[in-house]
Amino acid sequence: MLEKIHHLGYAVQSIEAASRFYEVNFDVELSGPETVEGQGIVATMFRVGESAVELMEPTRPDSPVGKFLAKRGEGFHHVAFEVEDLEAAIARLKSNGVQLVDEEPKVGLGGTRTAFVHPKGASGVLTELVELPDRAR
Amino acid sequence: MLEKIHHLGYAVQSIEAASRFYEVNFDVELSGPETVEGQGIVATMFRVGESAVELMEPTRPDSPVGKFLAKRGEGFHHVAFEVEDLEAAIARLKSNGVQLVDEEPKVGLGGTRTAFVHPKGASGVLTELVELPDRAR
Repeated sequence: MLEKIHHLGYAVQSIEAASRFYEVNFDVELSGPETVEGQGIVATMFRVGESAVELMEPTRPDSPVGKFLAKRGEGFHHVAFEVEDLEAAIARLKSNGVQLVDEEPKVGLGGTRTAFVHPKGASGVLTELVELPDRAR
Repeated sequence: MLEKIHHLGYAVQSIEAASRFYEVNFDVELSGPETVEGQGIVATMFRVGESAVELMEPTRPDSPVGKFLAKRGEGFHHVAFEVEDLEAAIARLKSNGVQLVDEEPKVGLGGTRTAFVHPKGASGVLTELVELPDRAR
């Protein structure tokens, strides 16, 4: 049911500094940066095997990632697992009484559909479920 | 250079409860549990694509994971990236002035060799580098 780790999201103060760290030390190839106004972030990604790491810098201090940084500092923010059928996954979590951030799928980058599970249920880890658009399969 | 995400490590209060959460909601198949006395943890793992998630419960409160739980509560603890040549990776990080937890490889589970990069350098994320033994390639 969890097909793969789609990406890890890191909250960083500066995607420029973080990008340089991963380029200089690990030869990663970065895409972006891309601004996602709805989430209040500028993001860049690098691939690692079948997964990716997303570096997220807040564009405003009152965005979710801005608040996270103010409270906890730089670090791991969320994991995203790819699923085949997001509706089915959400329905199952709901019927099991798991606390969700999103009770309905949202549209994410590149036409993906996503929903977040609340960290309270999921071992304290903010967990995103991602379903790819048909064309990306 | 980073071949794939080898695993994510989650610190949990109870691997029994956390295991049940991932089994009931996501049909994962768990291995273990296995006690790693040197690290003061009991751990179980489930595979996600080419990666795995490791659930770690401390066996004593003064172990690194025990202290982490007391300070931050349950949640993401570390990411492990697979590398082909751990010595070369360590040498490069050292020459770039990156702060390391382990300046020499340690032997990990299943004959892997591992070294941790200090979170201070790596966007606040405790980052493990893992080299597989020859037979596992």
